Amino acid sequence: ALVACQANPSGSPSTDSTSLPQLQWRMATSWPQSLDTIYGSAEAFCQKISDMTGGRFTITPFAAGEIVGGLEVLDAVQSGAVECGHTAAYYYIGKSAALAFGTTVPFGLNAQQHNAWLYSGGGLEAMQKIYADFNIINFPAGNTGAQMGGWFKREVNTLSDLQGLKMRIPGLGGKVMERLGVNAQVLPGGEIFLALDRGTIDAAEWVGPYDDEKLGLHNAAQYYYYPSWWEPGAALEVQVNKTAWERLPKEYQAIFKAASYQVNLEMLARYDRLNQEALERLLAGGTQLRSFSPEIMAAAQRVAFEIYAETANSDATFKEVYEPWREFRDKILQWHKINELSLTNFVAETL
Amino acid sequence: ALVACQANPSGSPSTDSTSLPQLQWRMATSWPQSLDTIYGSAEAFCQKISDMTGGRFTITPFAAGEIVGGLEVLDAVQSGAVECGHTAAYYYIGKSAALAFGTTVPFGLNAQQHNAWLYSGGGLEAMQKIYADFNIINFPAGNTGAQMGGWFKREVNTLSDLQGLKMRIPGLGGKVMERLGVNAQVLPGGEIFLALDRGTIDAAEWVGPYDDEKLGLHNAAQYYYYPSWWEPGAALEVQVNKTAWERLPKEYQAIFKAASYQVNLEMLARYDRLNQEALERLLAGGTQLRSFSPEIMAAAQRVAFEIYAETANSDATFKEVYEPWREFRDKILQWHKINELSLTNFVAETL
Repeated sequence: ALVACQANPSGSPSTDSTSLPQLQWRMATSWPQSLDTIYGSAEAFCQKISDMTGGRFTITPFAAGEIVGGLEVLDAVQSGAVECGHTAAYYYIGKSAALAFGTTVPFGLNAQQHNAWLYSGGGLEAMQKIYADFNIINFPAGNTGAQMGGWFKREVNTLSDLQGLKMRIPGLGGKVMERLGVNAQVLPGGEIFLALDRGTIDAAEWVGPYDDEKLGLHNAAQYYYYPSWWEPGAALEVQVNKTAWERLPKEYQAIFKAASYQVNLEMLARYDRLNQEALERLLAGGTQLRSFSPEIMAAAQRVAFEIYAETANSDATFKEVYEPWREFRDKILQWHKINELSLTNFVAETL
Repeated sequence: ALVACQANPSGSPSTDSTSLPQLQWRMATSWPQSLDTIYGSAEAFCQKISDMTGGRFTITPFAAGEIVGGLEVLDAVQSGAVECGHTAAYYYIGKSAALAFGTTVPFGLNAQQHNAWLYSGGGLEAMQKIYADFNIINFPAGNTGAQMGGWFKREVNTLSDLQGLKMRIPGLGGKVMERLGVNAQVLPGGEIFLALDRGTIDAAEWVGPYDDEKLGLHNAAQYYYYPSWWEPGAALEVQVNKTAWERLPKEYQAIFKAASYQVNLEMLARYDRLNQEALERLLAGGTQLRSFSPEIMAAAQRVAFEIYAETANSDATFKEVYEPWREFRDKILQWHKINELSLTNFVAETL
């Protein structure tokens, strides 16, 4: 390298003359700015890329609705309307059901297990294979950790308590709830509080203590259930238009990837701290914690795996992802039962 | 930036003329190459930095003993003999006892909790404050996950079974074992198999299934205990000479940090997969799994926190780190008991 530098009259002996392009990208996101942990991760992601490139490669994030709607990020990235997006794969299961595994599925993997599957168990390759059909490449970029089971105006102990219950719960969790007799509804975040407060719905799930508190759900329902068996660790991701990706210098590709790991870790770390603090405030304010009964948990798990089996029968792509995912899940659970769970359970029980 | 480019005759309109220096650093590590997950992470870290800088900033990793001994990395980084190192903070508790919290302590935090403490709970700032006295700045860069309790030639069920037992177990785990009556010994990895096989020692811990298998410990003892209550999630780190760090362009600092997050996630993901596969092989070969009894676990936990309290009384720096760490630990355990553990336990129990 020193020889190359000496051949360049403008180069000092310790610098390299290779220049990197100035690039300005736009990032559509699925998030309102009020979800500061999640939208904040998109902002942090863009900032890190700017920092790593000395401001040469800048990406501007946009909240949901500023460029496209929160659930239209994939389309905007696919068409090239924006170069990239920050979103969740499970918003797009209508395009390919297997994308659910990119985020989280009922009774699936927790954050650590999901990262093991993505980065070491073939998961990311499986997701990238699906996205290739949409001219997109994706990278994991955030995790909420295990969420909460939501707010209920009355206690639910048995399966019969679920019959006819009107609950705001979207996605696969909603599908499982429907089979258990729940009237599952989809409402955007901004409409949940009023519906729950007025009794239009009997229950609602959102994320966890920190985000739920901001919606004021504790002022509309008293019972706070756990766990969210439908979201054991919701992963977010960046999606990049593949044509734009392939035009990036290799350095920028490596930088883009590295930033995605950074926000993946930082978002979970932030949620872990903020949620515990928010839960303390909620409990001090009168919220009553309740756990889902083994009867409800067992029925929900049975139904969830029925749905996976049915979907695998009718959708070859889903089957191709699901079967090795299922094998990985069972194996890592066996291992974590021995190492992670035995110790953390002992420590938690003897607090 | 375009203006600057136009002033530079060699710059094209889409490129920036700012050049970044060619730098070649050396990285001392604490690892033999045979620990391919850990040494491999140091290699991957260096590769990523090269990728992100187009080969302008290269770091060459060296195995333990190639430049300095595995436990002398901090000294080599402090003196500037090497610019950086990949090691574990708890090797240096002789210099400052509080550095134990940078890696892992008995009955402490698991990997996810440790990352939450480091990145969001003030932990990294606390560690960097200690390292500043050594002219070093550190960044987390890897985690083994919860380890195994090691190999025993005979079963241990009660505290009296531990009396006089000769066990290879270094560090704080060894100190706790000593108080429980164990004759704790420190042996380097390469000497463990022979000592255990010949009966010079009765038990030995190393890391987990994947690394233990390579040492052949299953051929020297039959009983494989869990969990390693002394290493609930051992974190590795990169240490950088602060003078060298401050001379880096801001871009390289940001790139260096980003690479540390990347290997932090990837190492754990890799261990999670490799350990489960190795454990399957070990069990198929006749290894007998045993869990430490509640009697031993409870006594060990009591003794561990006695040691922390004693150390805090005599070491102000330890106290300054320990007290907020302890508070963070208790709070995150309360939260994880509700969200993470309730769900993962249910799923694991119903496999």
